[in-house]
Amino acid sequence: MKVNGKHYRTVWMKGSSVFLIEQNILPFDFKIYESKNHLDTCNTIKNMVVRGAGAVGATAGFAMAQTFLEAPKNNFWKYIKKAKIVIESTRPTAQNLFYATNRVFNVAEISKRPIETAVLEAQKIADEDAENCRKIGEHGNELIKNGFRIETHCNAGWLAFVDYGTALSPVYIAHRNGKKIFVFVDETRPRSQGAKLTAWELKNEGVPYNIIPDNAGAHLMSQGKIDIIIVGSDRIVRNGDIANKIGTLEKAIIAKEFNIPFFVAAPTSTFDLNCKYGKDIPIEERSEDEVLYQTGLTNKGKIEKILVCSPGSKAINPAFDITPAKYIKGIITEKGIIKPDETSIRKILN
Amino acid sequence: MKVNGKHYRTVWMKGSSVFLIEQNILPFDFKIYESKNHLDTCNTIKNMVVRGAGAVGATAGFAMAQTFLEAPKNNFWKYIKKAKIVIESTRPTAQNLFYATNRVFNVAEISKRPIETAVLEAQKIADEDAENCRKIGEHGNELIKNGFRIETHCNAGWLAFVDYGTALSPVYIAHRNGKKIFVFVDETRPRSQGAKLTAWELKNEGVPYNIIPDNAGAHLMSQGKIDIIIVGSDRIVRNGDIANKIGTLEKAIIAKEFNIPFFVAAPTSTFDLNCKYGKDIPIEERSEDEVLYQTGLTNKGKIEKILVCSPGSKAINPAFDITPAKYIKGIITEKGIIKPDETSIRKILN
Repeated sequence: MKVNGKHYRTVWMKGSSVFLIEQNILPFDFKIYESKNHLDTCNTIKNMVVRGAGAVGATAGFAMAQTFLEAPKNNFWKYIKKAKIVIESTRPTAQNLFYATNRVFNVAEISKRPIETAVLEAQKIADEDAENCRKIGEHGNELIKNGFRIETHCNAGWLAFVDYGTALSPVYIAHRNGKKIFVFVDETRPRSQGAKLTAWELKNEGVPYNIIPDNAGAHLMSQGKIDIIIVGSDRIVRNGDIANKIGTLEKAIIAKEFNIPFFVAAPTSTFDLNCKYGKDIPIEERSEDEVLYQTGLTNKGKIEKILVCSPGSKAINPAFDITPAKYIKGIITEKGIIKPDETSIRKILN
Repeated sequence: MKVNGKHYRTVWMKGSSVFLIEQNILPFDFKIYESKNHLDTCNTIKNMVVRGAGAVGATAGFAMAQTFLEAPKNNFWKYIKKAKIVIESTRPTAQNLFYATNRVFNVAEISKRPIETAVLEAQKIADEDAENCRKIGEHGNELIKNGFRIETHCNAGWLAFVDYGTALSPVYIAHRNGKKIFVFVDETRPRSQGAKLTAWELKNEGVPYNIIPDNAGAHLMSQGKIDIIIVGSDRIVRNGDIANKIGTLEKAIIAKEFNIPFFVAAPTSTFDLNCKYGKDIPIEERSEDEVLYQTGLTNKGKIEKILVCSPGSKAINPAFDITPAKYIKGIITEKGIIKPDETSIRKILN
C-alpha cells in the first residue's frame, strides 16, 4: 500500500535485516524500523511495533529466517532451536506466529541448503499473506457498487497484514477500479484504531472518508446513509459465529434491523474448526486505562496521555465481542464469499 | 445532591446573587461561581457554566429576577423588558429558558410588589424543577429491583437540572432506599458526558459504577449483565418518538434485541405536541473538533486538548438521534410512567 505516494509493505526482509513500519508511533509519525537480528525482531513483536494477525505471522517467519543467517556453524541447529522458542514466546496467543515459525523451520530442516530455504520460505509466507488479502479484496469488490457508502469498524487494513488487509482490501480494490466510494470509519474506542489507523490508511490511499463516533452508527443507518458494513475478524468458529473488536456486535445487530448487509472479511486461516460456538471463545479483558485515558497529539506536536473521565473512576474494557452468525450476511475469504454456517465453512476449507 | 458530602443544587439564588456549579471545569475541578447581576448570569448560560434543560431554565428565571432587583426606579419596566430580550438571546433554542423568563415577567407584571414577586416566582421555578425530578425518581424507583444493573447514556443527572436529574433520579432514589444497585455508564463520545459528568455525580452520591466504552453495550447485554436501561430525552413528540444524545438509538435497538427494558425519563415539559413524528425533529450537527479532539487531565494536573485521530481527518458529529417509540418500554414522568403513544401522552398532559 501507499504512504506519501510510495509503495510499502507492513514488514519485509532485505539481506539479514527485517524492516517494519513502526506502528506504535502511527498516525502521528511515520518511520521504518530496521531490525538486524532475530532478538531485535522479537522485540518488535513484543513492543507492538508490529500488530495484527498476518503482519505478526510474517514478522515471526522473518525472525526465524534471521536465526538461520545468524547461527554459528559449530552449533547451528541448537542455536536455531533455542531461538525458535524465544520467538514463539513473544506473543503466545497469536496462532499465525506459530504457523510461521514451524513452517520455516520444518522446510529448512529437510533442505540441503537450510539457510537459503529458510529465507525463501519466510518470504513466501509474507507473499502469500499479501496475495490472500488481495484476493479477499477482489471478491469483496464484487459487493461494492459505484457510489457505495461503506462503514467499517476498528482497523482490518493492511497495517494488520503484510499488504491490502481484509475488511479494507475490497475498499482499496473498488477504489483502484475507479468506483466512487465513501467510507465511514468508526472511531472504535477505547483504542481508537479506526480514527487512528484506518483513517491514516485511507488518507494515504486517497479514499474519501469521515471518522464517526461509535455512537453515530445507528443514526446513519436509520437515515439510509450506509450501503454496506465490512469488518475483519480475529476468529471464526465452526457455526459461523465470529470474534472481533468490541462494538462489532452492536453494528451487526443495528445493520440487521435496518436491512443493511453486514460482511466479515478474513483469510481462511482465521477459521477455527476446533471451536464450535462463539460463546466458547474467551474474551480478553484489557486494562481499564485504555478507557480512562486517551493518547494523542498536543498543539505543540507532543504525544500526551490524558485522563478523559471523572478522576477515580473504574472502567471495564472487554477487547472483543462475539457476533452470532445470524447477523452476518457473508464471509469474504481469499477463496470466495461464503455463508456463515458449518457446511459452507467445511466446504471452503477442503 | 451531594458533593464531598455536602448538599448542593446546580443553581440557586441568595440575595441578589445567583450561584452556579461551574460545569465547564467538571469533573477535574469543583467551584461555585457567583453571578452578581443579570448580564453576568447571561454569560454563564452562554459560556456553558450551566447546561441542561432544567438547569438553564432555572438560571434564566433567576436572571430575570435579578433584573427586577437591578432596575432603576425611574426606568423600571423599560430596563426589565430590555434585559428580558438579552436573557432570551443567550440560548434561543432552549424551550425552558423562554418558559422561565415569561413566567417570572408575567407574574411580576400584574403584582403590586413586582420585585418580591419576581424573586419568589424564580425560586418557585427552581423548586418545581427539583420536585418534578424527585417525583421522576420515585416513579422510576418502582422499576428498579434490588441487585439491578442499570445502563445509562450521556448525563441526564442533577447537573442538567436543579436537583436529582431525570434518568439518574430513579438511581439515586433506589440507592437511598437501600437497594443494592450497579450502574454501567456509557462513556458517550464525543463529548464524554457519561465518563465525565455522570461518573462524577455517581461517585459523589456513593453509587457503585463502571465506565464502559460505548462499544461495549451490546456485549454486556448479550451476556445478561444489564437489567434495565434508563436515558433522558431532549424532546418527546406526539407519537412517542424521542430525541436524545447520539447513541441512544443504538442502545434502544440492542436492548429490544435482548429483551432488556429501555426507559426514557423526562418531565412532562419535554413533550412537544406540535411535533408529530420523530423524523421531523431537526438534528443539530456540531463541530467535528469534538470528535477529532479530546480534552482531559495530564499527569501534571493540567487540562489539555489533544488530537485523537489521524491528522488531517474530517469527522461528522450529529449531536442527537431519534429513537422510535417501538423501542421504548415506557416514559417516566413526574406524573407517573406512561406508554410512548399519543393517547397516553395526551392523557398525562391533561
